[in-house]
Amino acid sequence: MIASTPKPPYYAVIFTSVRTELDNGYEEMANAMVDLARQQDGFLGVESARNDVGITVSYWRDEEAIKAWRENTAHALARRFGREMWYQSFKTRVAKVERDYGFEIEM
Amino acid sequence: MIASTPKPPYYAVIFTSVRTELDNGYEEMANAMVDLARQQDGFLGVESARNDVGITVSYWRDEEAIKAWRENTAHALARRFGREMWYQSFKTRVAKVERDYGFEIEM
Repeated sequence: MIASTPKPPYYAVIFTSVRTELDNGYEEMANAMVDLARQQDGFLGVESARNDVGITVSYWRDEEAIKAWRENTAHALARRFGREMWYQSFKTRVAKVERDYGFEIEM
Repeated sequence: MIASTPKPPYYAVIFTSVRTELDNGYEEMANAMVDLARQQDGFLGVESARNDVGITVSYWRDEEAIKAWRENTAHALARRFGREMWYQSFKTRVAKVERDYGFEIEM
């Protein structure tokens, strides 16, 4: 769903990817990585969807939190599998969220 | 597909949404807006996917290009329809891309 993030500024890591046709535990690993990310200090939320292209946006308190997650051993292993098996191509963009606004129907 | 964007810095507008069950020309309008965005000065690319949540990330040269697109009349009308019919909730985040990196299998 839509991530509940605090007032900006905070960071977004936009990960866009095209999958190969190999499975080999991709879904399990992807879910495990989201669970693990949620436990990291400075993690603010995540949004994800996939059709022809997959987009996962994770939100973080600051650059230090992103760096610590990048250095997490299990995450580094998952990224290696990603390059070797699961992704035909990907792009990662690190961006500082400067402002945001939203809308929700009152139910 | 994955957008081909220039060297940072540039801007990302991350639009995350949950749809209502109303159709009323949603797909046609969404496609028309992408076509129109592509014609704007400063537009760099767009990526989009939808499952439970929809994520559309559009990339822009600078804040001025984002502002001009926001003020486009057809786009303003589409956003109004979005609030009135198509979206149960959405969040828009404007972020400055500071760095990026990628990977592509050589075919």
